[in-house]
Amino acid sequence: MVPHLATALTGPLLDLEKKILDATPAIERWFRLEWQEHTPPFYCSVDLRNAGYKLAPVDTNLFPGGFNNLASEMLPLTVQAAMAAIDKYCPDARNLLLIPETQAQSRNPTYLQNVARLMQIFRQTGLHVRLGSLSPDVTQPTPLALPDGNMLVVEPLVRSANGRRLGLVDFDPCTILLNNDLSSGIPSILENIHEQSLLPPVHAGWALRRKSNHLKAFDEVAKKFGKLIDIDPWLVNPLHAKVSEVDLEHDQGTEELADAVSSLLSKIKKKYKEYGMKEQKPFVIVKPDAGTYGMGIMTIKDASEVRDLSLKQRAKMSVVKDGLAVTDLIVQEGVPTFEKIDDAVAEPVVYMIDRYVVGGFYRVHGERGIDQNLNAPGSQYVPLAFAQQHAVPDLKAKPGTAAPNRFYVYGVVARLGLLAASLEMERTDPNPEVY
Amino acid sequence: MVPHLATALTGPLLDLEKKILDATPAIERWFRLEWQEHTPPFYCSVDLRNAGYKLAPVDTNLFPGGFNNLASEMLPLTVQAAMAAIDKYCPDARNLLLIPETQAQSRNPTYLQNVARLMQIFRQTGLHVRLGSLSPDVTQPTPLALPDGNMLVVEPLVRSANGRRLGLVDFDPCTILLNNDLSSGIPSILENIHEQSLLPPVHAGWALRRKSNHLKAFDEVAKKFGKLIDIDPWLVNPLHAKVSEVDLEHDQGTEELADAVSSLLSKIKKKYKEYGMKEQKPFVIVKPDAGTYGMGIMTIKDASEVRDLSLKQRAKMSVVKDGLAVTDLIVQEGVPTFEKIDDAVAEPVVYMIDRYVVGGFYRVHGERGIDQNLNAPGSQYVPLAFAQQHAVPDLKAKPGTAAPNRFYVYGVVARLGLLAASLEMERTDPNPEVY
Repeated sequence: MVPHLATALTGPLLDLEKKILDATPAIERWFRLEWQEHTPPFYCSVDLRNAGYKLAPVDTNLFPGGFNNLASEMLPLTVQAAMAAIDKYCPDARNLLLIPETQAQSRNPTYLQNVARLMQIFRQTGLHVRLGSLSPDVTQPTPLALPDGNMLVVEPLVRSANGRRLGLVDFDPCTILLNNDLSSGIPSILENIHEQSLLPPVHAGWALRRKSNHLKAFDEVAKKFGKLIDIDPWLVNPLHAKVSEVDLEHDQGTEELADAVSSLLSKIKKKYKEYGMKEQKPFVIVKPDAGTYGMGIMTIKDASEVRDLSLKQRAKMSVVKDGLAVTDLIVQEGVPTFEKIDDAVAEPVVYMIDRYVVGGFYRVHGERGIDQNLNAPGSQYVPLAFAQQHAVPDLKAKPGTAAPNRFYVYGVVARLGLLAASLEMERTDPNPEVY
Repeated sequence: MVPHLATALTGPLLDLEKKILDATPAIERWFRLEWQEHTPPFYCSVDLRNAGYKLAPVDTNLFPGGFNNLASEMLPLTVQAAMAAIDKYCPDARNLLLIPETQAQSRNPTYLQNVARLMQIFRQTGLHVRLGSLSPDVTQPTPLALPDGNMLVVEPLVRSANGRRLGLVDFDPCTILLNNDLSSGIPSILENIHEQSLLPPVHAGWALRRKSNHLKAFDEVAKKFGKLIDIDPWLVNPLHAKVSEVDLEHDQGTEELADAVSSLLSKIKKKYKEYGMKEQKPFVIVKPDAGTYGMGIMTIKDASEVRDLSLKQRAKMSVVKDGLAVTDLIVQEGVPTFEKIDDAVAEPVVYMIDRYVVGGFYRVHGERGIDQNLNAPGSQYVPLAFAQQHAVPDLKAKPGTAAPNRFYVYGVVARLGLLAASLEMERTDPNPEVY
């Protein structure tokens, strides 16, 4: 199920954690049955926020970078899960083509380490792995230096003579793995690929993907989960609303956004009241419905802040990754993070391949508050290593828990995000007949 | 594919190891394709012998004990593989019934630790796990003390009111996992179970299973594998012959056995000559075609030894586990072991769940020679832990190898045994329509 990792939190289990741990057999069975009906994304990372009173995913990434931030002890688990995934899509695979981000090539050595780690994982499943570039600048094999002195080589993509397959000059892959979220649109070279497994599918990319579809699916998943273990789904699900056609830079939709913020803040306040949290100050996060890369995300505590946004702030909300313009916005209940590492605010990020939790890390930011987005320049990463309690089986413990696995709870909530992503992908598939 | 574990061998890779590592992508693809056609046993352990010049399975156990001998770091990998296995047989499982050995209950605390470890593994997949006993003496829940002070409880098995299901008084399992090799026959309470998954199937038990069927299947697997990576299959496959209806105690079949030994010794000698090993002394292992528990196994270097067996030795060959009489014998090429731990002779044992290698250990025996069976009183177990090389990706290494994973080679040969067991189970299934 979920590896037993050491979390930043210590001390007694919170109520929600206890409830989830107690329901382990029911939860695992439910996931097994859901995966009979739905196909998990090939890989996925989920950013969580643990507020103590609630624990919820705040971002579900279908093109996870950051595999290099997982503890190296996680590698065998990751390779095994990758093996299961490859098995499903392309058992006769010899070759895997990995398509990384283009912009990141030159400017982000950390991202390149993620690419190197992904190559290592898939090589260890026994595949030949090479890198193809979506960048028009890559017209021949191009070396990219890794911080450790090793080299990656990206190569130009080519379509086969009959136009039906995608590969490299002398490399015909069975599986094409995107680690590029397609924020700048779907390149024509990725179109009409039917003979090979293109994973994740192009509609998982931000050219087409919308957070609102994910959140809608997550509402359903959280509701089912709440019923399953008899909790208020709000405990794992932030409230949210969508505001369409906003262009803050040209003052279009500002009022609608302010109203939505105001309405969501009241709803959160009501929830806080219901749970007797009189001191808790509600806040919301405003972010584009289409992809971001940690850009264009605002923390807002009062609707008036929307009206008072400076021109600079407005401009910031209008430009997201690769120049994609913001039109629709999501207003999401802010979940403060309860966890700290060395006094710096921290949020857990859980990594999954296929249906399996393969590891996690804390994203830590020394300059940010408990109510702010931590996926921003200056963030650091603390890998989670195995907790050593598992060495001594405690047979008197509740079934499934042994020594209580706090990280298990994170793995469960992350998998709720994974399941929602699976529903989202099914429902937004432009060619649903393939399911 | 196979975790990167630290083996006892150090120094440069042997030729066979190199050949296997170089062929990693082809081998992994081949296994993936074979598992599309054949169902791996639920779990399996394979005893290997590494002679330097050859590396071969010498025993394939379908009811592995000894999960407690795996390093505790292996637990997450084992749980993930168990999850994949449960998924396949019974995704809606809530309950798993584990049926351990009966004799071992009172007399073998080490075996009980294996049972405790298995319970821990399956609890961590999110199942309720309880123990059912095949012993008629267990008429009520019976506590069994573990060496660490914890308790296991075995309970009497019951059939449901309509007779169709097997469980405990208030426990209806979806999966029934046998960790009892049924040497003493198939108890009637295990018969006609069609609504639940009984794993492994009863024909995997020594009441019905015969080594000769396994070896026949292994011959085919080794042949295919040899072709795949262009090696002489003999390098992974000991020569063998079967001698039927032998009763040494009553001097029946002694001559036939001596002839078979003599003939196999010449064949081995010829092979040694072919490989230029003039100094190598051939020997054979004689063992019952039906199950053993490390008993009734002889090392023989000359056919005359068969004729000169003492009455005591003859009697030993006639009694194997739970009083099953020996009639058919297997004569198998002896593979000396090349590996030592602290001057004691050692052989690797590889553990698998479903198609996944989940760990291994060395069986070590200080009192035995390199040409003797080590599965005997006095043997000790050295868990294999993860090698730490994987922390540093070596991108210039051959695909799939990174830092050369010596244990990978063991994992490959062990999986050849796993695949042979899968073919064997298919072919010996008394109700083949279920495939």
